[in-house]
Amino acid sequence: MDRKEDATEASPLPQDDLVMGNAIYRLACRLFPLCRSITGQGVRETIGILGDYIAIERHDVPSGTRVFDWTIPDEWIVRGAWVKDPSGRKVIDFEKSNLHLLNYSIPVRRVMPLAELKAHIFTLPAQPDLIPYKTAYYTDAWGFCMAHAELMKLAEGEYEICIDTEKTAGHLSYGEYLHTGTSGKEVLLYAHICHPSLANDNCSGLALLTCLAAYMKSRKTYYSYRFVFAPGTIGSLTWLARNEHRLATIAQGFVVSCVGDGGGPNYKRSRRGNALIDRIAACTRCGPDQKPLNIADFSPYGYDERQFCSPGFDLPVGLLQRSAFGTFPEYHTSADNLDFIRPEHLGSSFRMVKDIIDGLESNWTPLNLSPKGEPQLSKYGLFPTIGGHKVNTDRTMAYLWILNLADRSNSLLDIAERSGMPFAEIAAAAADLEKAGLVENLGFGER
Amino acid sequence: MDRKEDATEASPLPQDDLVMGNAIYRLACRLFPLCRSITGQGVRETIGILGDYIAIERHDVPSGTRVFDWTIPDEWIVRGAWVKDPSGRKVIDFEKSNLHLLNYSIPVRRVMPLAELKAHIFTLPAQPDLIPYKTAYYTDAWGFCMAHAELMKLAEGEYEICIDTEKTAGHLSYGEYLHTGTSGKEVLLYAHICHPSLANDNCSGLALLTCLAAYMKSRKTYYSYRFVFAPGTIGSLTWLARNEHRLATIAQGFVVSCVGDGGGPNYKRSRRGNALIDRIAACTRCGPDQKPLNIADFSPYGYDERQFCSPGFDLPVGLLQRSAFGTFPEYHTSADNLDFIRPEHLGSSFRMVKDIIDGLESNWTPLNLSPKGEPQLSKYGLFPTIGGHKVNTDRTMAYLWILNLADRSNSLLDIAERSGMPFAEIAAAAADLEKAGLVENLGFGER
Amino acid sequence: MDRKEDATEASPLPQDDLVMGNAIYRLACRLFPLCRSITGQGVRETIGILGDYIAIERHDVPSGTRVFDWTIPDEWIVRGAWVKDPSGRKVIDFEKSNLHLLNYSIPVRRVMPLAELKAHIFTLPAQPDLIPYKTAYYTDAWGFCMAHAELMKLAEGEYEICIDTEKTAGHLSYGEYLHTGTSGKEVLLYAHICHPSLANDNCSGLALLTCLAAYMKSRKTYYSYRFVFAPGTIGSLTWLARNEHRLATIAQGFVVSCVGDGGGPNYKRSRRGNALIDRIAACTRCGPDQKPLNIADFSPYGYDERQFCSPGFDLPVGLLQRSAFGTFPEYHTSADNLDFIRPEHLGSSFRMVKDIIDGLESNWTPLNLSPKGEPQLSKYGLFPTIGGHKVNTDRTMAYLWILNLADRSNSLLDIAERSGMPFAEIAAAAADLEKAGLVENLGFGER
Repeated sequence: MDRKEDATEASPLPQDDLVMGNAIYRLACRLFPLCRSITGQGVRETIGILGDYIAIERHDVPSGTRVFDWTIPDEWIVRGAWVKDPSGRKVIDFEKSNLHLLNYSIPVRRVMPLAELKAHIFTLPAQPDLIPYKTAYYTDAWGFCMAHAELMKLAEGEYEICIDTEKTAGHLSYGEYLHTGTSGKEVLLYAHICHPSLANDNCSGLALLTCLAAYMKSRKTYYSYRFVFAPGTIGSLTWLARNEHRLATIAQGFVVSCVGDGGGPNYKRSRRGNALIDRIAACTRCGPDQKPLNIADFSPYGYDERQFCSPGFDLPVGLLQRSAFGTFPEYHTSADNLDFIRPEHLGSSFRMVKDIIDGLESNWTPLNLSPKGEPQLSKYGLFPTIGGHKVNTDRTMAYLWILNLADRSNSLLDIAERSGMPFAEIAAAAADLEKAGLVENLGFGER
Repeated sequence: MDRKEDATEASPLPQDDLVMGNAIYRLACRLFPLCRSITGQGVRETIGILGDYIAIERHDVPSGTRVFDWTIPDEWIVRGAWVKDPSGRKVIDFEKSNLHLLNYSIPVRRVMPLAELKAHIFTLPAQPDLIPYKTAYYTDAWGFCMAHAELMKLAEGEYEICIDTEKTAGHLSYGEYLHTGTSGKEVLLYAHICHPSLANDNCSGLALLTCLAAYMKSRKTYYSYRFVFAPGTIGSLTWLARNEHRLATIAQGFVVSCVGDGGGPNYKRSRRGNALIDRIAACTRCGPDQKPLNIADFSPYGYDERQFCSPGFDLPVGLLQRSAFGTFPEYHTSADNLDFIRPEHLGSSFRMVKDIIDGLESNWTPLNLSPKGEPQLSKYGLFPTIGGHKVNTDRTMAYLWILNLADRSNSLLDIAERSGMPFAEIAAAAADLEKAGLVENLGFGER
Repeated sequence: MDRKEDATEASPLPQDDLVMGNAIYRLACRLFPLCRSITGQGVRETIGILGDYIAIERHDVPSGTRVFDWTIPDEWIVRGAWVKDPSGRKVIDFEKSNLHLLNYSIPVRRVMPLAELKAHIFTLPAQPDLIPYKTAYYTDAWGFCMAHAELMKLAEGEYEICIDTEKTAGHLSYGEYLHTGTSGKEVLLYAHICHPSLANDNCSGLALLTCLAAYMKSRKTYYSYRFVFAPGTIGSLTWLARNEHRLATIAQGFVVSCVGDGGGPNYKRSRRGNALIDRIAACTRCGPDQKPLNIADFSPYGYDERQFCSPGFDLPVGLLQRSAFGTFPEYHTSADNLDFIRPEHLGSSFRMVKDIIDGLESNWTPLNLSPKGEPQLSKYGLFPTIGGHKVNTDRTMAYLWILNLADRSNSLLDIAERSGMPFAEIAAAAADLEKAGLVENLGFGER
């Protein structure tokens, strides 16, 4: 399978989305080879690459630091790992895939019979050609992951095992970048940085948010946008612990992961269930066929939104994905590679995220200046002059909905919700109506 | 195709519904041939025919009158219109169908090649034998409508075109009839009068409401019933403008259209969504098979309920139809003719409208006089004396529901809603129970 | 078909549920042969058998006693009933099945031609081999029930008829048993006792509740549990009339019937709709495959919950069944026999009832003592130490839901409802978390 760094086939995506998708894909390709974990050099190198795009600030928090009910573990250092069969051939080699080594394995240097070794080998019998991704962060264990088909080929005999790792006092690192808006309120955008060579989960999220941060430099916004790139669970907990005094400024937020494939899209609501971000996500569309997002209620299983939505914080933070984690066969296997994610999907996902941000930024409340009956839209060039058959194009319907509901009590988001139309369409139609002098902008709705 | 003015085949409709259906059909047949528009002689003649049934009052409002964001246009006069082919044969003739002429066409008298003429001809390629209905009210355009199959037969060459029309200062006319009840509250019943030879849309609505008005002469009612027959959009706006000072008396209302076919029935809620009329419609059934109405939420696209439900008025006015406009293939074509509507469907629709009015008039609140346990219904002849298998006939179930819920807090409508039974069934059962002395009438519920 | 008094095949039911199912089945077998009615010896004998298990108190209320809108009828005594064909052969005999006699038949001793007799014979033409169950409690009628196939075999001629019954002043009897808890609040558990030889409806309910009452002797409870075994309708009305002054103590309750087959389970909400019992039933599961209960809204047709939920009482009393009455083909026929009900289903039903009671008894409110982020569950042995693939077992998910929602505002029932998990699973997980010191018991929620 040859790797296509740019989507070249004709696409119905807007050209700038495709350009952006290609840029995101190129960044994901740079991030993919690194062996990340919840601590260590891979995380620092990843943050370094993101620093080529944005002025990211790296925070290093020492091992042993208490973080709520947790403690930052020793840093994990990997120098190599392999298994040699009785003939001395390397049958597993960390050099070939960093998924081969159980993440956070303790060092081992031993010879043992195959039967004993097997107790330390993880495979996926139902997906016999794929290497699974397994972790053992908070325990002292060792192991290897490999394709089940390869395991089946191993002959009986004595195997030589080398895991050249070390756990030593070091740091947990995370990256942070702030785009400053005019208000004191912040939108938290979060991606986990701890996964090794897995493309969709979550090189895609890291790359998309980084390109978004770079893109936003040219935008003036109401909200500030705080981008956080941190290891799963312990990373978000560490960020929460160090920022606890200022969490009141977090007005909205969402976690981004698995945004490079063509599935979904899926949005999981925050614990609050009806936060502004939850409502806007439900009025958002994605991709050339403008699919509505599948909206799931909050549940306490998932990514780092679990921590932001724990009862002690209860922040309005959701989870945005294309295919939902755990539901696609490539999930947490060697098949989640750079062929699985595509520039056009990254481009669509970028547009979806941008539309959500536009929703946060532009939820104004229109007032119909001609509220008695409909205004004569054809006078303003907003309605066809020849009638008789259905003229309910999306734009025309958006005009009618806005005019009907623009009675001071409804923001554009309220109108999008009641009409069932995308927020972006309602916002564009409202701009037309304001330009035509048919509605007045009463200022912003809920923020 | 021969026209059947009376439905003679056996029908499970109640006999008086069939009689009424035939009467409505006969009136629709009288209205069908006239060339109506939003102004002009056709509207006045239509109101004249309705005047044979009820003491309708005609209002004539001069061209140029400002109506909110609109202006009443010049009156449109048609004397004739045709197209002759190079051999001098009339290939389009307004005399044969008033749909052939683009409604509100400006006058034209020219010779031109077929290619040039075609830019002014509207057809329906997917329904090649039907003439479409098209309008150009608020612009200066001209055109013809014809069957696509006929257009295909036209040979190249020079065509002679005659549109003998005129736009001149005149009037917009509408008709109004009031049935006076005992309260000061009014129910608005509205049908648009502007369509030329289209039977379901809306000769059926005009005829049904007129026959209803005639029928109600013999009834004493709580509400007054205001029947308005006016051109679409500009007509309802004109009525609203001239009655703005007294709109507070409009307690409920609905627009009636497309009530002559066997589809649906469909009810679109008012903008308020939970008006009494909306709730009653949802508890109404239609036709021999007692179909529940499909209930749609309000949307700002449709007929004149758009104007009544604009934010400056927000009247509790819904839309009642059999097949919903725009969804049936005959809609706005020459196939919407007197064969498409049937007396039995008009009769069922009449019964449905009458049931809704009965609901408005008779939503009383019962009190169970024997509220501790069920009363022994068999003592009163309201329950079978031999038991053992299911006896939950509709009427029995209605007794049980009423007795169970008649605790002062529920009107008959509340009971119909919670039980899922038709209001008419609940009302009939409540009458039985009152007669048996088992419930007391506490007076009227919501009105 | 041979009768299996014990389920011997391997079953995934917990062993103690199976033991209990067998015990319930044995009791149902004792109750089945008796000819019960709404009064009379059969009811007294039934209460006598239940008295072998629990200290049941029998109440005898005289015929003629006024009970709200009803009057307790004379007692019905049956000594025998048969029909002889022209050859003198008994073609119907009460001795063979007590269903053969229309319940509450008046005495008859006559000879008549078949044609005349047929007007008094009830059959089920669609189920030609089954005898229907029919009643004529509050009227003076006589009749027989038989298999339609048997009726078809009868030859013309004179038939001799003997119905040796008597209606005479006597008593309506019902049984009552109280398990006393620590609070003054009572849970009402009701089964109707009036049906003759019908196994599921309702020997199953009588037997299950009796075994439950016996089982509860060893339990200390918050609620008192009042078990009432009374004839349908007139029995529950009589109990209500005699206990009207103390109905305020009834905090919750449900009627139990048809709990011996493998269908459903079904729960019908009380009239209030959101009583604690209604909410707990919706979070309960049944049987080896842990089926959620089908939850139906209250309706006024059914068993004795109709009386408890009449507007004069409005008690929070639901109806619990496996297959819903009237929906299974064996209902009210001779096929509702001891082969139709099975020990394993009775065992599952018992567990379901017990789980509901556990829900009533143990709806405490947890407080997460580590509310900032998730606690590190693996430290407490509550989470696997090797990660990477989905670990959302039921128990793990229950931990996460409880921790997420344990913010003082949610009881275990609230948590079960929002998570969609069974109350029993949430309660078990909460016990683990309390033991681990992760949550504190704030006391009981709604009771």
